[in-house]
Amino acid sequence: MQGQELQRLFMVLSRLPGIGPRSARRLLLYLLKRKDRVIPPLLQALNEAYSKTVTCSTCYSLDTQNPCTLCEDPRRDPKLLCVVPDILDLWSFERPKMYRGYYHVLGGVLSAMDGVGPENLRIQELLHKLRQGTVQELILAIAPTLDGQTTLHYILEHVKPFPVKTTTLAHGIPLGGELDFLDEATLSTAFSGRRRLI
Amino acid sequence: MQGQELQRLFMVLSRLPGIGPRSARRLLLYLLKRKDRVIPPLLQALNEAYSKTVTCSTCYSLDTQNPCTLCEDPRRDPKLLCVVPDILDLWSFERPKMYRGYYHVLGGVLSAMDGVGPENLRIQELLHKLRQGTVQELILAIAPTLDGQTTLHYILEHVKPFPVKTTTLAHGIPLGGELDFLDEATLSTAFSGRRRLI
Repeated sequence: MQGQELQRLFMVLSRLPGIGPRSARRLLLYLLKRKDRVIPPLLQALNEAYSKTVTCSTCYSLDTQNPCTLCEDPRRDPKLLCVVPDILDLWSFERPKMYRGYYHVLGGVLSAMDGVGPENLRIQELLHKLRQGTVQELILAIAPTLDGQTTLHYILEHVKPFPVKTTTLAHGIPLGGELDFLDEATLSTAFSGRRRLI
Repeated sequence: MQGQELQRLFMVLSRLPGIGPRSARRLLLYLLKRKDRVIPPLLQALNEAYSKTVTCSTCYSLDTQNPCTLCEDPRRDPKLLCVVPDILDLWSFERPKMYRGYYHVLGGVLSAMDGVGPENLRIQELLHKLRQGTVQELILAIAPTLDGQTTLHYILEHVKPFPVKTTTLAHGIPLGGELDFLDEATLSTAFSGRRRLI
C-alpha cells in the first residue's frame, strides 16, 4: 500500500495477536474506508481504557477500579476462592454467572519450556490469603494440560497444611460434544469417571 | 469483564471485521496487559492515518497524498490501465511488483443481491480516461465470480467503441495448486485452455 502513515498503521495492526498480514490489510482498509465513523470511537475507547485500566491488588484481574468490581462485591461468598491461571479464564467463568465466590489470578502456569517458575506466579499471594482463614473451599480451575497439571500439583503441595477443602473442575465429555471428535484421553477420563444412573 | 471502559473497548474491537467475541477478548487482554508498550503506538498510528488518508481523485485508491504515489510515479507506463474492483486488489497486484502501469479502482462489482448498479461504480470515470486516448491496453483484473463476470461483460460493452486492446487475467491452476483440491470449473477451464509444449 502507499503512504508512510498507512504502512505504519498496517505494521502496528499486523503485530496484534491473531491478526496476520492478510487480516491486517482488510482491517486497515475497513478502518480507512469508513474512517470518520469507525476511527474516532476506536481512538476514544483505546484512550479511555488506556488511562483507566488498573490491576486489582486483591485478585490481580484488570478493571477500572482497585479493588476491582468483583472483589468489592459484598454479595459474593468469601468462603469460596477460585484460582485461575489468566484473566481470560476469569472472564470465561464470569460469563455463565454461576460462580459467586472470589478469584485469584495466578498469572500463568508453571512451564519449563517458557521459563515460568513458581516465583513468576502469584502463589505466595495465594498462600497469604489462605492464612487469613476465611477461605473454606479453594477451587483450582486450571486446564488439564501438562503444564496446568504440574501447576495444580505444585499448588496442592503448598496448600496441604491449610484446613481448606480443595477442588478442581470435572473432566469429561463437553456438553454437545460428539464422541468421535474427542481425543482418546478425554474419552478414557469420561469412561473411568462414569456416573451411575439407576 | 469488569469496568465500563474495558467493556466499551471490547464492544468496539468485536465489531471490527474478522474479529469475533473470542478474538476481541484476547485482543483486549493483550492490549491491556502491555498497555504502555502497545497502546501508544497504536493510538499514534491510528491518529496519523486518520488525519492524513485521502482518496486519490485519479485512481480512487487511498494514500496520504492526492494524486497518490502510484498516479504521480512518472516511471509508470501511461499506455497501461488496470481496472480493479477494490483497493485490496490493487494492493495485491502491487506486491509482486510486476505491473508497471496505472490503476482504476471501480469501487466494487455489479451485484443485484447487494443492490450495486453501474451508477454505483466508477465506470463513467473509466470511460472518461479512455476518451483521453492515452491508454492502449485496458486490463480488466476482475475475479471470475458470477458478479465479477457480469461486471466484466458490462464494461466490455461500454469499452467496445474505443480503439483499446482489452484483456483479462488468465484462468487456470494456481501455481503450487494440488489438482485434487481444485474445483471442477477451474479444472475444466485449465483443461480447455491447455498450452502446447512441443
